[in-house]
Amino acid sequence: MQKRLLMTPGPTPIPGDVLLAMAQPILHHRTPEFKGLLKSCGDDLQPIFATNEQVLMLSSSGTGAMEAAITNFCRHGDTIITVAGGKFGQRWGQIGRAYGLSVVEIEVEWGQAVELSAIEEALNEHPGARGIYVQASETSTGVRHPVQGIAALCRTRSETLCVVDGITAVGVEPLEMDKWGVDIVVSGSQKAFMLPPGLAFIACSEKAWAMAEQSDLPRFYFDLLKERKNQATGQTAYTSPVSLVVGLRKVLDRMLAMGVEALHEHHDTLARGTRAGILALGLKLLANPPATSVTAAWAPDDMDAGDIIKGIGQRNIKIAGGQDHLKGRIFRIGHLGWFSQADIIATLSALECTLADLGHEFSPGVGVVAAAAVFEGK
Amino acid sequence: MQKRLLMTPGPTPIPGDVLLAMAQPILHHRTPEFKGLLKSCGDDLQPIFATNEQVLMLSSSGTGAMEAAITNFCRHGDTIITVAGGKFGQRWGQIGRAYGLSVVEIEVEWGQAVELSAIEEALNEHPGARGIYVQASETSTGVRHPVQGIAALCRTRSETLCVVDGITAVGVEPLEMDKWGVDIVVSGSQKAFMLPPGLAFIACSEKAWAMAEQSDLPRFYFDLLKERKNQATGQTAYTSPVSLVVGLRKVLDRMLAMGVEALHEHHDTLARGTRAGILALGLKLLANPPATSVTAAWAPDDMDAGDIIKGIGQRNIKIAGGQDHLKGRIFRIGHLGWFSQADIIATLSALECTLADLGHEFSPGVGVVAAAAVFEGK
Repeated sequence: MQKRLLMTPGPTPIPGDVLLAMAQPILHHRTPEFKGLLKSCGDDLQPIFATNEQVLMLSSSGTGAMEAAITNFCRHGDTIITVAGGKFGQRWGQIGRAYGLSVVEIEVEWGQAVELSAIEEALNEHPGARGIYVQASETSTGVRHPVQGIAALCRTRSETLCVVDGITAVGVEPLEMDKWGVDIVVSGSQKAFMLPPGLAFIACSEKAWAMAEQSDLPRFYFDLLKERKNQATGQTAYTSPVSLVVGLRKVLDRMLAMGVEALHEHHDTLARGTRAGILALGLKLLANPPATSVTAAWAPDDMDAGDIIKGIGQRNIKIAGGQDHLKGRIFRIGHLGWFSQADIIATLSALECTLADLGHEFSPGVGVVAAAAVFEGK
Repeated sequence: MQKRLLMTPGPTPIPGDVLLAMAQPILHHRTPEFKGLLKSCGDDLQPIFATNEQVLMLSSSGTGAMEAAITNFCRHGDTIITVAGGKFGQRWGQIGRAYGLSVVEIEVEWGQAVELSAIEEALNEHPGARGIYVQASETSTGVRHPVQGIAALCRTRSETLCVVDGITAVGVEPLEMDKWGVDIVVSGSQKAFMLPPGLAFIACSEKAWAMAEQSDLPRFYFDLLKERKNQATGQTAYTSPVSLVVGLRKVLDRMLAMGVEALHEHHDTLARGTRAGILALGLKLLANPPATSVTAAWAPDDMDAGDIIKGIGQRNIKIAGGQDHLKGRIFRIGHLGWFSQADIIATLSALECTLADLGHEFSPGVGVVAAAAVFEGK
C-alpha cells in the first residue's frame, strides 16, 4: 500500500493505457502493420517538433541521438562551439572530443543561461565553426538557453548549424524548429513522451542534410542518411524498439488530442505552480531563466539538499538531486510528462513537512497555497 | 478471434508474465532498487553466456553491440577478417569499412559454414589481423559456423581476437565462451531472451579488455571501458532501457529455473522436429550444418517461396523469407525463445496445407508426423 510518486525529470511516470499497449503481443517489425505504425508516428511527431522535416527514431537513449547530431554533420578537424553550463552541455564537448573535433566550450555558470553576446563572440572568433551545440532546457540545472536567438545567429552563417538538445524541451515548451531556423533537434522517449527510455528522436533541417552529405566522420549504427531513406518507407535500418513505438502511438494520440499549444500551457502551469510554492517557502531558484521541464532550487544555506531529498523520499515521493558540484546543494522537481497539479501540491506538502523537520522557518501551508493559487488562475 | 502465431527468428513471442512485469510503473534508474536489479541481471547473464566475465548491457539493437565489438578493440588501420556468408556476416565488414579498417572478407556460399582451413589461410596471410568476426548462427541462412575451431585458431595468436555474433545462438545452443576461448560474444534481447528489441549484450575476455586499452577508434555512446566501470556499480553510463531490464529479470528467472543445458536441449528438440518435418515433405534444407535457432528451407524448384510464406500467413502464422539473392527462394521458421512443440506442429501443418494448395506432391500429414516422432523421442 506504499503508492510512490516519481517526480524526477525522466524517467517520468507512464500512463496505464500506454503501459498496457506495450504489453500486447509483440509485432514483427518487417510487416505492413508495423510500417504503417512507424510512418504514422513519424508524421505525428512533426507537430510536436514544430517541423515539416522527417523526425527519425533511433533505438538508443537520448545520448545516442546527441552523438548522431555530431558524427553525421561534422568533418575531420572541424570546430564546434558548445555551451557548457551543465552536465548535458558538457556532454556535447565530450562527444566532440571523442571524435577528434576541436571543441570551443563557452563556460557558463551552472544555472545561468548563455548570453547571446558570448555566442556571437565565439562565432566571430571561429567563423568556420560547424555548429553551435546547446540545450534548450539543461536538465541538470533547469535553465532555459535562448535557442531562438542562437538560431538567428546561425541562420546567416551558411556553414554553421544550430543544434539543440531538446530532450527535456520538446513537448514541454515552444521550440519552434522551422520557424526559428533550428537545424537539428534531439529528444528522447522517457521525458515529455511519457515512455520508458530506449527510443531517441532527431529531426534535421535541409541545411543540415546538405551538410550531412559532406560529413566524413565514421559512423554505422547511427547513420542518419541511411535512417532517413529507410524510415521514409516505414522501416528503421536496424531492428526497431517495437514495443516503444507501439507505446509512442498511444502517447501521440494523447498529445495531439490535447493540442501542442495546450500541452505547453499545461506544462507551464505546473512549472509556475512549483516555482511559486518554492519561493513562498523562502527558498531560491537556481535557474535564470527557468525552463518548464524541471525546477531546481537551492537548499537553505545551513542544510544539505540530500537531507531534503531523503525526507521527501520518506514520504514516498522521489525527486532528484544536483549533479557534480551542485550535489548536496540543490534539489530538482520534474514536471514534464504525465504529471498533474495534484502531484505538484503533494510534492510541495512533502517539501514543507521535510523543511519543518529540518528546522527551516516558514508559515506552514504557504508553499501549497501559493501553488494552488497559480493552478486556480489567481 | 484471429490468434496469430509469430514464428520468425526475432522478434519472438514474449511470455505474458514478462509483458506484465514490464507494464509495471517505471523505476528510476538512479536508485538502489534499480542498481540491485541491473547487477543481478548482469550476474545471471554469465551462465547463459558461459562466462565468468562481466556481461554488459547496452541500450540499442544487436547491431549497436556489433559496432561496439569493432570500435572498442581495433586501432586505426587495423585489418580484420570477417566471414561473409550471409547478411549478418556482411554487416561485420560494413561496420569495419565504416571505421576505415582494412576488411578481409572470407566469401562463403550462403547456407554453408566457413571451412576452418579458410580461416587458417586468412590468418596466415594476415598474421596481424586484429580479429576474426563471425556469426555463431547466421540468422539469414540458419547456418552454424564452427566457432569452437575458430576460437582455437585465435587462441595461439596473441594479437587476434575471436569475436562472435551470438545474437541467435546465446541461450539456444552451446557457445562456450570461456571454455572455447571466445573473446567477445554479442547478443540481443528479442531472440532467445524473449523480450522486445532494444537491449543488447556484450561480454569480453581478459585478452579483449587488454586490447581495448590500445584501441584508438572514436566512440562515445558505445564506450565499453566506461560501461564496464559503470555497470560494476549497477549503473549504465547513459539512461538504461529500464523496462527491458525489468523484463530481463523475469526472463532470466525462467531460463535459470530450467537450467542452461535443458534450455539448449529444448531448442535442439524444436529444431530437430522442424527439420524432420520439412525433410519428410520432400523439401531441402539450406544450411549445412543447421543452427538451432532457425530452420531455412528451399522452396520446391517450381515455386516462389513468397507464395509459401503468404499461404502460411493466411493461416495466421508468420514465418520469414530469404534476404537478398535468396528472397523468393527460401523460407525460414524461427524456433528460439518462447516456442513450444505445439507451435512447430501447427506451423508444419500450415506448411503442408499451403504446399498442397500450390501443387506440391506429398502424403498429407507426413511432415507433422515426422516432427511429432522427434518430439515423442522416437
